Amino acid sequence: MDGVRIVELKKSVFESNDREAEKLRDELKEKGVFLLNLMSSPGSGKTTTLLRTIEALKAKYRIGVMEADIDSDVDAGKIAETGVRCIQLHTGGMCHLDAGMTRQGMEELTAKDLDLAILENVGNLVCPAEFDTGATCNAMILSVPEGDDKPLKYPLMFTVCDAVMINKIDVLPYFDFDMERCRQNILMRNPKAQIFPVSAKTGEGISEWVKWLEGRIDRK
Amino acid sequence: MDGVRIVELKKSVFESNDREAEKLRDELKEKGVFLLNLMSSPGSGKTTTLLRTIEALKAKYRIGVMEADIDSDVDAGKIAETGVRCIQLHTGGMCHLDAGMTRQGMEELTAKDLDLAILENVGNLVCPAEFDTGATCNAMILSVPEGDDKPLKYPLMFTVCDAVMINKIDVLPYFDFDMERCRQNILMRNPKAQIFPVSAKTGEGISEWVKWLEGRIDRK
Repeated sequence: MDGVRIVELKKSVFESNDREAEKLRDELKEKGVFLLNLMSSPGSGKTTTLLRTIEALKAKYRIGVMEADIDSDVDAGKIAETGVRCIQLHTGGMCHLDAGMTRQGMEELTAKDLDLAILENVGNLVCPAEFDTGATCNAMILSVPEGDDKPLKYPLMFTVCDAVMINKIDVLPYFDFDMERCRQNILMRNPKAQIFPVSAKTGEGISEWVKWLEGRIDRK
Repeated sequence: MDGVRIVELKKSVFESNDREAEKLRDELKEKGVFLLNLMSSPGSGKTTTLLRTIEALKAKYRIGVMEADIDSDVDAGKIAETGVRCIQLHTGGMCHLDAGMTRQGMEELTAKDLDLAILENVGNLVCPAEFDTGATCNAMILSVPEGDDKPLKYPLMFTVCDAVMINKIDVLPYFDFDMERCRQNILMRNPKAQIFPVSAKTGEGISEWVKWLEGRIDRK
């Protein structure tokens, strides 16, 4: 695809992912780069939400995006059209990114002159939650069609995320989804979670999420 | 929860999962048990589809269900209400089941007098595809809200499944989902895949899936 570099990630060789993650986080802080790790199930709307987020913030910040995927570069092409720097990371079948893999991506993105780097993680509610990528902030998307019980079934993901977007609220009338029950389920896992009901399709609610993210970036 | 036993699975100790899987498959064949491994993303409708399938087949076959989950027993309770034998498998954080874990489940289910055993795998489009559970047949669910491009992004899952249900067709009017493009994407990964558009909510299309499954069970 034009304009999108594909990076085949190598398996990390570090003994302690947690140590590597802390190291990467410190380095990024020193360079003034805010790294957002965005996670969700397959098909929750990560890329569409990212497009909205980039449009809202690209005048203010220098943004770079890493699109992680097992295969394909469907998403990276869409992101590249916004004009921000974007690379495609191929995990070679692996179900998550760890700190070593994230570092490889950041080096390819030549992140030193960025304010905001975004990692779109592999679509998976399980494994990415287990590996600290070294990101400054973890956010996730749960979409209405997936159901309000997901925090009960995938506890760790909801625990490690600072922000949870509840996406696809435009189709709420067609699903048996209780927003209040969902909030309670999320807060049970993580009382500090910031919750943003959004529709990446219509744009509803995106400004609240963006405002919160700006606040986090500016105090980095 | 009443009537649902919870089994905490132990990590498998076998060197070769493929060998263990073949062994389990052979043993089940000898006992006349058909084991269906059902996989999907979180929230695609595995449990609702299972409920429909069980209702259609429970008069004809002796059915047992293993509900695998990282945590919680939300689903097992619903299945137990159908009157079929059901146990809850907890994976202890693990993102998939392998053949050794499936064997532990089958032993707890005391599968010897069953015709049909069903494993509802962990909601995950990545890792469960990499581990042969020893099942007689793999099936998966892709739901309309997830998008028609998923076979491009999660190739292995679509490759290892004999049948793909496309669920939630009742909400097709509200999503940008092209059924023909989805079919082509699936068949590109797996030309032999049987594709069943269904709505577990309304029951539409379920009889075609059930008929196909019956055909597979009867020639086991």
